[in-house]
Amino acid sequence: MNRLITFEGVDGCGKSTQLKLAAAWLQSRGEQVVTTFEPGDSPLGGEIRRLLLSGEHLPVAECELLLFLADRAQHVRSKLMPALSDGAWVLCDRFSDSTRAYQLAARKLDAAGLEPMLRFAECGITPSLTLWFDVPVETAVERMRLRQLAGEKSSRLDDEAVSFHQRVADAFVRQADAESERIVRINAAESIDEVHQQVIAMISARFQL
Amino acid sequence: MNRLITFEGVDGCGKSTQLKLAAAWLQSRGEQVVTTFEPGDSPLGGEIRRLLLSGEHLPVAECELLLFLADRAQHVRSKLMPALSDGAWVLCDRFSDSTRAYQLAARKLDAAGLEPMLRFAECGITPSLTLWFDVPVETAVERMRLRQLAGEKSSRLDDEAVSFHQRVADAFVRQADAESERIVRINAAESIDEVHQQVIAMISARFQL
Repeated sequence: MNRLITFEGVDGCGKSTQLKLAAAWLQSRGEQVVTTFEPGDSPLGGEIRRLLLSGEHLPVAECELLLFLADRAQHVRSKLMPALSDGAWVLCDRFSDSTRAYQLAARKLDAAGLEPMLRFAECGITPSLTLWFDVPVETAVERMRLRQLAGEKSSRLDDEAVSFHQRVADAFVRQADAESERIVRINAAESIDEVHQQVIAMISARFQL
Repeated sequence: MNRLITFEGVDGCGKSTQLKLAAAWLQSRGEQVVTTFEPGDSPLGGEIRRLLLSGEHLPVAECELLLFLADRAQHVRSKLMPALSDGAWVLCDRFSDSTRAYQLAARKLDAAGLEPMLRFAECGITPSLTLWFDVPVETAVERMRLRQLAGEKSSRLDDEAVSFHQRVADAFVRQADAESERIVRINAAESIDEVHQQVIAMISARFQL
């Protein structure tokens, strides 16, 4: 069992904050931790991220999917595999479940037929645990709005219609159902500290800490 | 039957010169012709081309394949489909057969299992005719060397070892064998004019001109 944990959910679900807290908690136990994210956490990936999210270009749905997968393959081989081989924990903000939700379900691309492509981009790596931060879409959209008001940089995908984010949210529900062993639901509507306690409990249970 | 003709072969096989001559010939008959190439003949594709070929980045094999496919999907939907719908001839310098030869065979990625991904990137478009410019690898490598001496910009793939280009050449042979209906062999070791006459003959035969 590898030590890869992925953090998933709609934008505004709080996963990035929780990832930092989980990393700090593991480090406080003396563990070696690498935190990372998709898309874009490699030099090549940073360029792909810009093509995808800056709004400069409008990739067609097939191109968008393939760019996300290209970023993943580079990220897996150049960052995740070396860190996991070193025995580090790797906490990754978004991975294949985000692709399933955003690039397949929300864009209405045929999900089942494309599963082998998603596996190809993973280069043989599957997370041992995926934490899915479940929050009502309205809450997530309101948080995104507040972040934009606060001057945080938004991405091209943040600006999609509410119906798009609803399809994303529904896809996470279905995905968690289909892979109930790997994916664990976190009630992300609670306070930051309460959510962090759930995260600790789930990681401890899965890895017998 | 669409009017998409793809021009394929190893670097230095003469396909780009022949593409221009074929376009001029069709235009001289009053036909509407769009000439294009892969990777990179869209604004987004130009950026993907730079990531792939400038040498600034070293994509892993899986990432390289996915970037070529991302470029193709964008190219097909933004350029090929509109031109074909307009009733134009589209002459395209490299398409899926180059991906099979360079990104699958030469990189030793599993070809059979990845065929659905290649189809996905084509977005439902298959060329009605593929001209394969067959030339001995030694001739092609020598032409590439001369082009570099003449100061022409080379790409990261031009600098691969001769064994790489041999695998590419072998893959074109196998591909032409497997799809002998679509792919037609052109003896590209002959003079420019003799090769052009072969091209005219093949296009005339396929499209009953």
